[in-house]
Amino acid sequence: MDNRPIKDVGENRVVSRFRVLASGTLGSDILVGPGDDAAVINSGESRLLLLACDMMVEGVHFRWEWASPRQVGWKAMVQNLSDIAAMGGEPAAAVASLAAPGDLAEDVAAEIAEGLASAAAVHGAALVGGDLVGSPGPVVVDVAITGWVERERLLLRRGAMVGDALLVTGRLGAAAAGLAARENGLEEAESSLLGEAIRAHHEPRPRLAEARAVANTGKVTAMMDLSDGLADDLPRLCQQSGVGAHVRAETIPIHQACSLVASRVGLNDLRMAVSGGEDYELLLTCRPGAVPEIEAALSDLRGAQAIVIGEIVEEEEVIILDADGREMALGKGFDHFAGPAAERGDD
Amino acid sequence: MDNRPIKDVGENRVVSRFRVLASGTLGSDILVGPGDDAAVINSGESRLLLLACDMMVEGVHFRWEWASPRQVGWKAMVQNLSDIAAMGGEPAAAVASLAAPGDLAEDVAAEIAEGLASAAAVHGAALVGGDLVGSPGPVVVDVAITGWVERERLLLRRGAMVGDALLVTGRLGAAAAGLAARENGLEEAESSLLGEAIRAHHEPRPRLAEARAVANTGKVTAMMDLSDGLADDLPRLCQQSGVGAHVRAETIPIHQACSLVASRVGLNDLRMAVSGGEDYELLLTCRPGAVPEIEAALSDLRGAQAIVIGEIVEEEEVIILDADGREMALGKGFDHFAGPAAERGDD
Repeated sequence: MDNRPIKDVGENRVVSRFRVLASGTLGSDILVGPGDDAAVINSGESRLLLLACDMMVEGVHFRWEWASPRQVGWKAMVQNLSDIAAMGGEPAAAVASLAAPGDLAEDVAAEIAEGLASAAAVHGAALVGGDLVGSPGPVVVDVAITGWVERERLLLRRGAMVGDALLVTGRLGAAAAGLAARENGLEEAESSLLGEAIRAHHEPRPRLAEARAVANTGKVTAMMDLSDGLADDLPRLCQQSGVGAHVRAETIPIHQACSLVASRVGLNDLRMAVSGGEDYELLLTCRPGAVPEIEAALSDLRGAQAIVIGEIVEEEEVIILDADGREMALGKGFDHFAGPAAERGDD
Repeated sequence: MDNRPIKDVGENRVVSRFRVLASGTLGSDILVGPGDDAAVINSGESRLLLLACDMMVEGVHFRWEWASPRQVGWKAMVQNLSDIAAMGGEPAAAVASLAAPGDLAEDVAAEIAEGLASAAAVHGAALVGGDLVGSPGPVVVDVAITGWVERERLLLRRGAMVGDALLVTGRLGAAAAGLAARENGLEEAESSLLGEAIRAHHEPRPRLAEARAVANTGKVTAMMDLSDGLADDLPRLCQQSGVGAHVRAETIPIHQACSLVASRVGLNDLRMAVSGGEDYELLLTCRPGAVPEIEAALSDLRGAQAIVIGEIVEEEEVIILDADGREMALGKGFDHFAGPAAERGDD
């Protein structure tokens, strides 16, 4: 037991305690409980049921100065759609809860709902219900989503094998660049790339088609979505699989907008690309020999690529190696990426 | 379009706009969308999938002075379990999102999770995942739940027919009495009834077994749970069914604890029993001749009763008639119930 505040003990520790408590409730029909992008429930029928949720809080996950109500609703739904994609599944029905102060304009609430509904409709999901409650605090949007996946297409974070190739489905860092552009007051009208970055931040796209395409190959050993960024997410995939990963920095595909914004605000673009989240590209592993098949599966989809960025290793470590073979730490220890330029950017 | 704040236009109007937006997303696999206790999704298999959500906000739905973190988690889960019960279903898996300020003690967060998990486990549901996010505002707990129901057992709010008997499954007002006891500083140690009322408010029980028992008869025409109180909920059932209801005041079963607390705080107990929500008893309709069968189905369950409180009528009006046959308005117009005693209680 610990009476220290969450901010001191860290989110991960609290989440671990939650998972222990939740694990005591899992019956034999729960094939995957907490810890993956979505839970997997045996429906007793041919398809498995998926269930996930994601919450967004005003002032933490979005600001009204930067995002329109419609974008907030859109993004809240896309986060959840992406969780279904990450399992190899197809979205079915979603519900959304909205906590709002009484002085929020009716139109703002309705526009959030419009964003939720349109993101659902565009991606083949239904918005089937919700809850609207008053709150003295910030606007909170929470979405929960169900999906279906055939047993043979189900992809988990666990499953990566030593020697597997590690891939991403597209360039990284555009969403982080959009956020940095907002934070640094860069105008989207300045260049089409800046506009692209800002849209990537506010109006992300779930990789549902990409996920189905790679799941259909039957060759993917593990998969997840990059919602928190490679630096945070790759260790999670490795931990669930009981393996480690070596990533080659020069192979990480950095989005052009990320390089542009990074140079404008004086940050390292590689650091921005791997630390910044919300790209919603897929991170996946397969036997090295299956890479061409994954590439072929994605080749029909506009904008999708299969980019090998490293390999799965036995040692339970996640390491990025620079062009000279030097080790660079990830995640919290990722400060090694920060050069003098980054120091300036922190001003 | 309307730029007035939600508090001026009213929750119902905003919810109506949400439902119009959501209805545009519903495909043929959604058998019931927004507007019932849970949505109903055709899984393409023998059982139908149910999905619902309910959100609780600190300072609005609970106060830390009155409720323990465990009770907050328990109640958040029970609200959702009750939604599954109301459809005649069985709960399956739930996810919970928690927004919490960084200075919330780790133990408080863990105890909320403990309440969520224990309410799920006790009632045969699994807590399969969630989201923990920081917030500058009040603690927000949102739960979404899935359940299964056989097509022939599914019960909706729509379905009540003119001439049907209107029933509740137990005494009303205990939870409202518990809240009033808290608000008026009555101590639960004072009497066992007060303790019962306060427990009813903080640790409600979903009527899952009761719901299955009545669903098994095949004789229920419409059903919902009493989460907001008879005065608010009965008009919803009637609206969905396109009918009205006449309720006989003297037949409304008032919980003893409600009568005790009402007299202590100078309020009308009937008003408290029908306006106060969170009893989670079931409200249901059946042909008058089927009442004995409903009674028999509930007779094996401790504490459950089938109490006829009125009948379904053609006129789309919801009216409570007093012993002298005088009309008493419901819901927002329910002030007719308030006597001089009630005025004192409002001080």
